[in-house]
Amino acid sequence: MKRSTVRLADGRELIYFDERDDAVRDAPDLRELPPPPPASELRYDPLTDEWVAIAAHRQTRTFLPPTDQCPLCPSRPGRSSEIPAHDYDVVVFENRFPSLSDRIGTSADPSSAGDQNGITPFTPTRPGLGRCEVVCFTDRHDTSFAALPPERVRTVVDALADRTAELSTLDGVEQVFCFENRGVEIGVTLHHPHGQIYAYPFVTPRTRALLAAARRHADATDGRNLYADVLAAERASGERVVAANELWTAYVPAAARWPYEVHLAPHRQVPDLAALDDAERDAFGPLYLDVLGRFDRLFDTPQGTGYIAAWHQAPVRVDRELGYLHLQVFTVRRAADKLKYLAGSESAMGVFINDIRPEQAAAHLRR
Amino acid sequence: MKRSTVRLADGRELIYFDERDDAVRDAPDLRELPPPPPASELRYDPLTDEWVAIAAHRQTRTFLPPTDQCPLCPSRPGRSSEIPAHDYDVVVFENRFPSLSDRIGTSADPSSAGDQNGITPFTPTRPGLGRCEVVCFTDRHDTSFAALPPERVRTVVDALADRTAELSTLDGVEQVFCFENRGVEIGVTLHHPHGQIYAYPFVTPRTRALLAAARRHADATDGRNLYADVLAAERASGERVVAANELWTAYVPAAARWPYEVHLAPHRQVPDLAALDDAERDAFGPLYLDVLGRFDRLFDTPQGTGYIAAWHQAPVRVDRELGYLHLQVFTVRRAADKLKYLAGSESAMGVFINDIRPEQAAAHLRR
Repeated sequence: MKRSTVRLADGRELIYFDERDDAVRDAPDLRELPPPPPASELRYDPLTDEWVAIAAHRQTRTFLPPTDQCPLCPSRPGRSSEIPAHDYDVVVFENRFPSLSDRIGTSADPSSAGDQNGITPFTPTRPGLGRCEVVCFTDRHDTSFAALPPERVRTVVDALADRTAELSTLDGVEQVFCFENRGVEIGVTLHHPHGQIYAYPFVTPRTRALLAAARRHADATDGRNLYADVLAAERASGERVVAANELWTAYVPAAARWPYEVHLAPHRQVPDLAALDDAERDAFGPLYLDVLGRFDRLFDTPQGTGYIAAWHQAPVRVDRELGYLHLQVFTVRRAADKLKYLAGSESAMGVFINDIRPEQAAAHLRR
Repeated sequence: MKRSTVRLADGRELIYFDERDDAVRDAPDLRELPPPPPASELRYDPLTDEWVAIAAHRQTRTFLPPTDQCPLCPSRPGRSSEIPAHDYDVVVFENRFPSLSDRIGTSADPSSAGDQNGITPFTPTRPGLGRCEVVCFTDRHDTSFAALPPERVRTVVDALADRTAELSTLDGVEQVFCFENRGVEIGVTLHHPHGQIYAYPFVTPRTRALLAAARRHADATDGRNLYADVLAAERASGERVVAANELWTAYVPAAARWPYEVHLAPHRQVPDLAALDDAERDAFGPLYLDVLGRFDRLFDTPQGTGYIAAWHQAPVRVDRELGYLHLQVFTVRRAADKLKYLAGSESAMGVFINDIRPEQAAAHLRR
């Protein structure tokens, strides 16, 4: 794999991950672009002890443009996209409308960058320091992750591992989150197959909950890893296992929150993607493609099944031994014509009501 | 107000809350109904330390029936609905497709009621003990909460207070949650104006987070109530206050998660709706109707703006002094043609990205 870094017209970084070692990536970005917006503002919610990002500049971001104006397709004569080259394998670049950014204080409007003083004594604010990156999986617009060849999945995993390692070294970054939102039912604003990376300046609420549970288990069991023990129990039971190979297992969690939810976990405990070895990176693609194919065949929907795929990684600086890398993939669709909405119980109280038994979901996915 | 309790054909309880003291409620339910389904199953998610409800029987529940088959309209000659009477003010009845129920072990299928043994050693299960009730705000199908007269809002508040007090006495109930989901964008399955009540057999994850923050604040301030202090700071600042009267204030939280989010809180600290006094119950309606009218005028949508309205109440048995009753109302719409989707960052990591500044939202709502 060859890695080439360039700068876009507004100074944002773009990295080509090429499968050919002789790729030359010197095409310039011919656009005139305004400077990237400053970081959003983080506000502390004292009632829940959580940070919220206020990203007012995102309200006007690109929303389902026509195919011939896709910013993620390669550039071609007469039309420059976000990617200067005329073709690519995998590219990663800084999001033009980032929720988190390391461009702080470059704005003419200081009020939008956070003043560190707080809105009231109970709501301190700070700049949304971090990074938001876009990961393009292929230069073909009309395809999907599920249709990629396994070698391309390997390149994507290598790119995500590279980004996880590099973003982990940035000042202030505490957690790196790689994910894909797919499908209009998830609110995807660009159809071109792509994922995203958020490098957060704090450990996220969900990860804090996972770590707290893992810590209690470790304390109670002389240091055992909770996720490893849960995974072993699922593999021993087999009832919710969807597919597996020697190095990875895909299973429906026994207390799944979403209609169709699958965890893909390596059999070896690693904190993050960067820690996966060569064999594990190779073995992931075929299993994940198998699972995504099963998702797409669940419902009779021409565009395939929308999903969110979320890599749970250990924080960058703390509790790395408590973490256990896994990919959580889930649909918000519960039937061909029905979505799972997050209404009062889920959105306001955090209590999920799942209409599909996890054993039934696993059996359905195995078929 | 007159309160009359009857039983539906399948044994479920229905309560009329009538504004006239001479109302007679003796119309029988003429339908033949199968017995209500058993409680769903609660499963413990060891990774997050949270309970999830698995309610497989809900998958086939009534979904946007034609208007002439609305189960929440009054019965009329030749068509029996859920409400036997030919008119009503406010009625509350047990949900026919409940996520939580006190009917345990009445099912022929023991596997659906939970076996208390656990799916794996890490996922104990238990029956979804509790209650789910439906609250009909009016017998008129084609209207909305925002169009109710203030006296009807008072009757609704009295009904919710009554249910909160009564459900709090049920064995095993730990928290009572009153809410309204409104609009197809929230996934509402019935258009007739109605709310719901969930009586949970545990303290919900969101409430646990609120209580943990409140406890830390009380410990650090010699017993001060966190919500009361935050409310006082918002009233003192005024920048995010949308509307107020002598007994209640409506404001946008400084770290709002949703595009348009408003808290309505009484100025006096009370744990739940049952503890509101007469004057507070009267003063709530006009303010809330004003706020809902402002929500409806936000966007040019013919059906009005969809929202979730969620009453945060103290738990039934513990930490009541840490709680502070408030109503959280929020839209998932961020523009006339754009919804706020919960994608990767929100759904998988719990980190909210809000595209609208709370001060801007408050100014927009005040206009």
